[in-house]
Amino acid sequence: MTDQVKYVLDEKDIPETWYNVIADLPEPPHGVLHPATGKPITPDDLATIFPPALIEQEVSDQREIEIPGPVRELYRQWRPSPLFRARRWEKALNTPARIYYKYEGVSPAGSHKPNTAIPQAYYNKTAGIKKLATETGAGQWGSSLAIACSAFDLECLVFMVKVSSEQKPYRKALMQSFGAEVVPSPSARTQSGRDILAKDPDCTGSLGIAISEAVEVAAASADTNYALGSVLNHVCLHQTVIGLECMKQFEMAGDSPDVICACTGGGSNFAGMAFPYLGRNLRGESNTRVVAVEPAACPTLTKGAFAYDYGDTAHLTPMVKMHTLGSSFIPPGFHSGGLRYHGMGPLVSQLLDLQAFEATSVHQLEIFESGVEFAKAELILPAPEANHAVAAARREAIRCREEGVGQTILFNLCGHGHFDMQAYTDYFAGKLKDYEYPAEEIAMALSGLPSVG
Amino acid sequence: MTDQVKYVLDEKDIPETWYNVIADLPEPPHGVLHPATGKPITPDDLATIFPPALIEQEVSDQREIEIPGPVRELYRQWRPSPLFRARRWEKALNTPARIYYKYEGVSPAGSHKPNTAIPQAYYNKTAGIKKLATETGAGQWGSSLAIACSAFDLECLVFMVKVSSEQKPYRKALMQSFGAEVVPSPSARTQSGRDILAKDPDCTGSLGIAISEAVEVAAASADTNYALGSVLNHVCLHQTVIGLECMKQFEMAGDSPDVICACTGGGSNFAGMAFPYLGRNLRGESNTRVVAVEPAACPTLTKGAFAYDYGDTAHLTPMVKMHTLGSSFIPPGFHSGGLRYHGMGPLVSQLLDLQAFEATSVHQLEIFESGVEFAKAELILPAPEANHAVAAARREAIRCREEGVGQTILFNLCGHGHFDMQAYTDYFAGKLKDYEYPAEEIAMALSGLPSVG
Repeated sequence: MTDQVKYVLDEKDIPETWYNVIADLPEPPHGVLHPATGKPITPDDLATIFPPALIEQEVSDQREIEIPGPVRELYRQWRPSPLFRARRWEKALNTPARIYYKYEGVSPAGSHKPNTAIPQAYYNKTAGIKKLATETGAGQWGSSLAIACSAFDLECLVFMVKVSSEQKPYRKALMQSFGAEVVPSPSARTQSGRDILAKDPDCTGSLGIAISEAVEVAAASADTNYALGSVLNHVCLHQTVIGLECMKQFEMAGDSPDVICACTGGGSNFAGMAFPYLGRNLRGESNTRVVAVEPAACPTLTKGAFAYDYGDTAHLTPMVKMHTLGSSFIPPGFHSGGLRYHGMGPLVSQLLDLQAFEATSVHQLEIFESGVEFAKAELILPAPEANHAVAAARREAIRCREEGVGQTILFNLCGHGHFDMQAYTDYFAGKLKDYEYPAEEIAMALSGLPSVG
Repeated sequence: MTDQVKYVLDEKDIPETWYNVIADLPEPPHGVLHPATGKPITPDDLATIFPPALIEQEVSDQREIEIPGPVRELYRQWRPSPLFRARRWEKALNTPARIYYKYEGVSPAGSHKPNTAIPQAYYNKTAGIKKLATETGAGQWGSSLAIACSAFDLECLVFMVKVSSEQKPYRKALMQSFGAEVVPSPSARTQSGRDILAKDPDCTGSLGIAISEAVEVAAASADTNYALGSVLNHVCLHQTVIGLECMKQFEMAGDSPDVICACTGGGSNFAGMAFPYLGRNLRGESNTRVVAVEPAACPTLTKGAFAYDYGDTAHLTPMVKMHTLGSSFIPPGFHSGGLRYHGMGPLVSQLLDLQAFEATSVHQLEIFESGVEFAKAELILPAPEANHAVAAARREAIRCREEGVGQTILFNLCGHGHFDMQAYTDYFAGKLKDYEYPAEEIAMALSGLPSVG
């Protein structure tokens, strides 16, 4: 072991393939069902909104999938991302644990999202598509796709949850800087949007509604496709560059993680970090503990049902078997926009159902307290989403102190907080409250689940 | 030459010494004069606001000055910063030039400022100081010092130009996240502030006023010192890690710059990039062209006088011989807060006077146009300040195209624009105008220069 602070790989160490966890599952993935018929979906059904290469990746059981040259070329702009040893935070925590974090905030959007935005834009470009439509909540995904579309000269249309577009004008400006059109959702541009507005003209929107609008636009036009920033198998696949790089970086460090923490919204940053390690566990080559951390105010993995559900509010997306709080669920306006989603990536859900990892939830006061403590030691102010992973790593470090064991903790610092200063301002002003989602409200939202599968 | 996109050095390649250009000047630096007496200042005069090590560095003529271990330790958090080859932008510009940029936006504050904030906090800590007072305009320097103080457990008091503190609440929140106290300037906390407010209760402040307030607070208390983010010799010294790293990175690339561009406000990011190269020129070892770029709306180097002047409005700081627009100069509110300063680092000024480099100015519409074009190719959205260097590099690249010569251009991308989205929003909304400073107004401001030296 060296005394290095950061482990930096060479450009040539960017993985040449993504890792597909489907290859190592002990059972096949659960099928995807057509939203209208409830019957298994065919690749043709998806072809109206996705390019062939991504549909193929969505169902592939090949363990390694090649990263195309032009994608690796763009990855080089910020990848390999650094792995840091949190030596100063360890001291501040007075823990015998060794804490490492993978820092994805070095990307041009400040988060892990460009890892999948770039290949999605690439595959659509090569399929002759002219425009991508998508949704965004906090704006991380929208700005990542805007950047990727700019790199491949595609038009980009972003339906931004209305309350976010009003609260986060700067995220909107970042998307516009890269040429994207940003439309507050619900909008009059789509039938889904008009239906919602007819019922509630003041509706502030939700990710589920914005997805409906983007899917509708993509389905209606032959040269427009849809791009999703989380949940789907191909999105999780693209994010695995995170965990794959970590493995090489731990070799440099002469260490290996005993426990890995990552936050979950739709599951893609968790999958990116954890799937390569879970795959190793599934193949019997290791026994690394993995912890998913979600907000107590949106407790999909810890309090949701594992059932078939829609990805959106208007039920235009296929149904997948996942941990869900029900597609009618509108989470409270807590300060981690990227984690306010009713569902979860189906592969993440299936792996939890198989008890391949643990899930836990944290309240927002704890995550901000953890994030500020981390920042004072490590100098990086994390995004509120990333603070969930910080809080979980801190719990593990304190456990190590109490148990007197020197374990190695790894967490995914999936983004910086430079676009989230309002959240920190509210935190320092004492305006944030913890919010426990009432069991009866969850039960009610779950009672509306489709009866299929 | 390789086909790499970025050149990344190892932690052990962080320079062990800073480079001091005074050692290679063909004449000694011009003396510093006491603000009250106009007589040469003594180290004792400075001891009320600076620690001994920084006073020593301010006047040292030693070529190499050792970087203390704890400073290098913290530099490791983001240094060495990457050097990028702008392959995609070269294509977009259709230029035979090879364009490289050093990217300082990877620092925890998103700019080059922590390069000096960290050693300044360190030297003050080791001198037994408890608190640092400073000023900030756009907030880059204030947040860098807040981060550095947090790392060394010092209190931090930031006088933030009032108009900026209102326009940039998020920068303020970032400083607060690291524990700094932020006071809008002019304030009632100091005599300088109260004097200004008595004359003009609605005064929106200026960097010159905020400096007066911070210096006054530091001079009045034995355990409080003052920290400046630019201009001074020791600040320029600390920034030379930028150019020193570039030299090693160009060795990796098998290339070397024919022309170097960097923007100037107080001169520290320019000095950091250019001084190691200018030193090589001064020693007769090379003949690299160096271009300083400033805003046409604050044309210190291109239209100011080279004369003794004060660094602040209340004339509490020493007088230095520099390019200046007069300490009463309040620049128009254009969108590069970090470059709105009436003066210039005395070493930068002296080197311009010696014709060691060229100075030019650009208008803000050109810099935003250049920055957006750069971002679409290279995926990084620069800070408006950095866009000045982008614009100058672009002019050079176009010249190379027109002349059909394949020169190597290097520029300093001193920060990202994630905190400057209001500027981009205004630019896209067509609200920005170019502003030529009227010659008679400059003449008037210059007429008030002190008659010394």
